[in-house]
Amino acid sequence: MSDHSIDIKISKASKSKIESVDFNNLDFGKVFTDHMFVCDYKNGAWQTPEITPYQPLTIAPSARVFHYGQAVFEGMKAFKDEQDQIWMFRPEDNHDRINKSSVRMAIPEFPKDVFFEGLTQLLHLEKDWIQKGKGNSLYIRPFVIATEEAISASPANTYKFMIICSPAQSYYAGEVRVLFAEEFSRAADGGVGFAKAAGNYGAQFYPTSLANKKGYQQIIWTDASTHEYLEEAGTMNIFFRVGDTLLTTPTSDRILDGITRKSLIQLAEDTNIDVEIRQISVAEIKEAARKGELKEIFGAGTAAVINPISGFEHAGEKFELPKLDDSYATFFKEKLLNIQYNISEDPHGWRFRV
Amino acid sequence: MSDHSIDIKISKASKSKIESVDFNNLDFGKVFTDHMFVCDYKNGAWQTPEITPYQPLTIAPSARVFHYGQAVFEGMKAFKDEQDQIWMFRPEDNHDRINKSSVRMAIPEFPKDVFFEGLTQLLHLEKDWIQKGKGNSLYIRPFVIATEEAISASPANTYKFMIICSPAQSYYAGEVRVLFAEEFSRAADGGVGFAKAAGNYGAQFYPTSLANKKGYQQIIWTDASTHEYLEEAGTMNIFFRVGDTLLTTPTSDRILDGITRKSLIQLAEDTNIDVEIRQISVAEIKEAARKGELKEIFGAGTAAVINPISGFEHAGEKFELPKLDDSYATFFKEKLLNIQYNISEDPHGWRFRV
Ligand SMILES: Cc1ncc(COP(=O)(O)O)c(C=O)c1O
Ligand SMILES: Cc1ncc(COP(=O)(O)O)c(C=O)c1O
Repeated sequence: MSDHSIDIKISKASKSKIESVDFNNLDFGKVFTDHMFVCDYKNGAWQTPEITPYQPLTIAPSARVFHYGQAVFEGMKAFKDEQDQIWMFRPEDNHDRINKSSVRMAIPEFPKDVFFEGLTQLLHLEKDWIQKGKGNSLYIRPFVIATEEAISASPANTYKFMIICSPAQSYYAGEVRVLFAEEFSRAADGGVGFAKAAGNYGAQFYPTSLANKKGYQQIIWTDASTHEYLEEAGTMNIFFRVGDTLLTTPTSDRILDGITRKSLIQLAEDTNIDVEIRQISVAEIKEAARKGELKEIFGAGTAAVINPISGFEHAGEKFELPKLDDSYATFFKEKLLNIQYNISEDPHGWRFRV
Repeated sequence: MSDHSIDIKISKASKSKIESVDFNNLDFGKVFTDHMFVCDYKNGAWQTPEITPYQPLTIAPSARVFHYGQAVFEGMKAFKDEQDQIWMFRPEDNHDRINKSSVRMAIPEFPKDVFFEGLTQLLHLEKDWIQKGKGNSLYIRPFVIATEEAISASPANTYKFMIICSPAQSYYAGEVRVLFAEEFSRAADGGVGFAKAAGNYGAQFYPTSLANKKGYQQIIWTDASTHEYLEEAGTMNIFFRVGDTLLTTPTSDRILDGITRKSLIQLAEDTNIDVEIRQISVAEIKEAARKGELKEIFGAGTAAVINPISGFEHAGEKFELPKLDDSYATFFKEKLLNIQYNISEDPHGWRFRV
């Protein structure tokens, strides 16, 4: 997919940093590749895109992004197969979603052809940064920020769309235990929870740090009105396995429409696993846990793929989940990775050749 | 209030821009003074503060503020009296509040002595930018942003605290009509609505732009769960005058604890105007309007001081408010300005000599 009517100005880094990177010891999101993609919006239009060396921005202290959080982002990955081919997973959905997020944050949408041309050219330049081997990937972060130098509380007239890339390793997060939220909340009805709006994430850091102090790595958010229904985690949608049925919350304006989530739902249907997409109450999950029927909880998202959860706490009650040999989490993770790394068939056409 | 144990490194602008500024034609928040105050946080501590020329920042595209909206701000004003003395209004409350906002956004609190020393020195440098005359002021914007170059979704280890200043004129916003929110919402229980967190503001731009298209300048937000109770506007707390009683919503974790709001409540008590601080339903306000008992609605906030509202719409019903000769809005605005500009007594010690 290369559209030569789109002109991208490319200035290459004089020297690659890749030699200095230890690909076996990567902290997530701390090392960035040699180049970035940048496109400015002004006078009502997206201007000529550029690929430049990865470098600091020069940006006014009055830029609206700093004051009003007018910013959205996406998270996607590129994978390399054994033949050195580069693949992505359903990237059109990320493009759709960043534009949905943008609309909600009063940011102009970014054109699909420029998005894909920029992504493709950037990834070709950075191909050595994508390491082979299941679990290794290049994490790709498209984002848009409001750059106009004006602190009146209204939408900006200028923006910067960028793509930066960071090599990522498969990681074992250790045992992950979660707290079901009882007091704090992530999103309101009629709010921006469904958008990957920057402020949604910073707002979770404090409650999560309190959870960390209690020994929980993450929070599973509940609805803000009653705290009786389970929603999602900070960067993952959540699945519950009760008996052999998989439960997950419907998407709404409070919940991110995760690409991993919807892929899992499809894979479950393909393999005749029952999936119920419905409101899930805290009470029923605790009840299922007490009866021994709650077999698994896991998170699903691009960064962690599938993240099994080994226990949870709610209202002072602690629950441990069984260790299973035939977990859905392992089954789905394997299925997904095999598609992503071009190991298995791809019946739904999810793979995207870069 | 000058504490010489606090060392501020000052580098002055080589030439002031003030000559180029038309103080009679100021757009709010677009022109900035010659200097800014900057203090970096790293290695667990706020470093030596600086005053530098107002200039762009150099900041990594991976800085967490761009991705996760980890950012808070304040808005305050400096006034000049006829004797060229400079005053602020309850600035300790702004310092308190930025720290409350910071705690909620997992940002380290900023020390009070450095805040006041920086503010004072900056304002002394910029004193010519503060124009005399009721309504003229210097709008002061302290803010904090997460600068760490890392896109993992967790609190940053490095921050920048800054103060920038923009000259402001008293302005007449024209007739302001508002829409009572029916679908969109601003804040969730257990969320960050009470904080001046950047993302709260960007999240309002889109619903507000839809309201603008219907002919309404602003939205009055309602509670996210039922949309039956009135909360506040985008950058103002809201007061309703029913008969001769003033009503305003209690503060909560959804509502900003406005300094103008609490000053008005005090001024109302001082002048024997009844104030009820309680939940205010949309239904009762519409009912009062129908009966001719709703005399005024006005917003209260630092930027606009008092902003009278001339009409509103809810559920397709439109209401116009009467034009009063003896409005509370005018009465309170006058009272407040007289204190702020050192024209009247200051019984509560709200004025702060810079
Ligand atoms: C809030 C939230 N939920 C869920 C997800 C998972 O979505 P996806 O599977 O598309 O990565 C993410 C990450 O993108 C997220 O930020
Ligand atoms: C959401 C919100 N409400 C109310 C206010 C008014 O607060 P203050 O009177 O302290 O300026 C502001 C502005 O600071 C605000 O941002």
